[in-house]
Amino acid sequence: MSTPNPISEYGFAPVPANPSTLFTTTSNPPPPFIPVSSTPIPDTPLARRIQEYARIHLPQPTYHHSLRVYHYGLAIKRHAFPSSAEAEEWAFSDETYFLTCMLHDIGTTAENLRATRLSFEFFGGYLALDVLRNDKDNKAGEGEGGAVAPQAQAESVAEAIIRHQDLRDVGMITAVGQLVQLATIFDNVGGHAHLVHEDTVKDVIEHYPRLKWSSCFASTVGEEVALKPWAHTTALGDFRGKILGNPYNRYE
Amino acid sequence: MSTPNPISEYGFAPVPANPSTLFTTTSNPPPPFIPVSSTPIPDTPLARRIQEYARIHLPQPTYHHSLRVYHYGLAIKRHAFPSSAEAEEWAFSDETYFLTCMLHDIGTTAENLRATRLSFEFFGGYLALDVLRNDKDNKAGEGEGGAVAPQAQAESVAEAIIRHQDLRDVGMITAVGQLVQLATIFDNVGGHAHLVHEDTVKDVIEHYPRLKWSSCFASTVGEEVALKPWAHTTALGDFRGKILGNPYNRYE
Repeated sequence: MSTPNPISEYGFAPVPANPSTLFTTTSNPPPPFIPVSSTPIPDTPLARRIQEYARIHLPQPTYHHSLRVYHYGLAIKRHAFPSSAEAEEWAFSDETYFLTCMLHDIGTTAENLRATRLSFEFFGGYLALDVLRNDKDNKAGEGEGGAVAPQAQAESVAEAIIRHQDLRDVGMITAVGQLVQLATIFDNVGGHAHLVHEDTVKDVIEHYPRLKWSSCFASTVGEEVALKPWAHTTALGDFRGKILGNPYNRYE
Repeated sequence: MSTPNPISEYGFAPVPANPSTLFTTTSNPPPPFIPVSSTPIPDTPLARRIQEYARIHLPQPTYHHSLRVYHYGLAIKRHAFPSSAEAEEWAFSDETYFLTCMLHDIGTTAENLRATRLSFEFFGGYLALDVLRNDKDNKAGEGEGGAVAPQAQAESVAEAIIRHQDLRDVGMITAVGQLVQLATIFDNVGGHAHLVHEDTVKDVIEHYPRLKWSSCFASTVGEEVALKPWAHTTALGDFRGKILGNPYNRYE
């Protein structure tokens, strides 16, 4: 079995940080309906362990949000960034993207918000590194060390988590980082709606209901800023307002 | 002995991230000459341990840069942000600022650039947390655990390191984070020059010569982007160009 190239396998390939730079010709045809059944959750010991970790630690609305971000992201990728011999940047593994989605908001739990004075994205990235690289319980019996991510994969996930609210006009970002930004912006504020078919939205939400996600996440953002008024989230301006104004609230 | 308020003691107090918002009336009088002798390095076991760590691990030009950033930062703070009963945000300990300066570029060593695929600021913050919280050698014989930073202080330093290249127009940042941004921008590209007296510059450089810092740091930035083309540094645009165009190169 050949060793995967870590840059492409784990989504490090650099892409423009500015989403409008990404969408030149690829976004012209409307997106097709991409049901949840065609973007399956990866069936690996690591994916299963991290999904269970997320299920236990995240409040249910955040857990559902994380799963929606996974399915939306893959739908966006399939439509807007089909990989090819000329465009390998988006050919990273579904597993890497899944791990990123499951852990991207791990810093926002009630416990973790209060466990640190670091901005939640930074604490979340460091926590993700630890969770991905250590499997002390080894419940799956995966041999010495358990179901762990290689360092490169764990770092790709951490980099994406640290930057998942770092919206930029200039510069580059990892491909997996860009994808999680697009999908979280879509689920949180309804941005980039031209990338996702309405039936895809309905199918994803049917599987993972929003459970009043907008008010829930707006409240979390409010908590982060109340506890840590210096936090990086403040760089997003009136983020709470945009969350509460999400047109997809109609599905809550 | 009373326990210090961690928010003010360790520089967490939120201040505007946009420097132009900071300078309304305070910057009108020209800055006074503030010699190195009046901004002494803190004489604590922790400060000594971290200074030695930096001296051993950083190349000499980076080590001198880190010391210049310390003295420039305190000179800037004294002139532009004198603390008072009404303005406690800038009353954080010199020790916290010193630790931040010593470790802010720890991610840029030849070894550390290659030890990770994380952006250097993120790896640096992570490494700083570990170095500040652990003193296994305990060379100073500081009792159980050695000369370590309290969690709050270590996190303030890490937060500032992670964001030290996160230049923003919107939102807030920790006071110590803003100060290290101002001082690094000054030493790296000559920005905010109205905040520092020319004689202060000459005295700081006499103590800690630039050793061709501009070409050295431009080369480091180039290395970071060559090794990690997705890196956060790319968000700064033509950073290398600005570094090489630093008017203070005349002192190299």
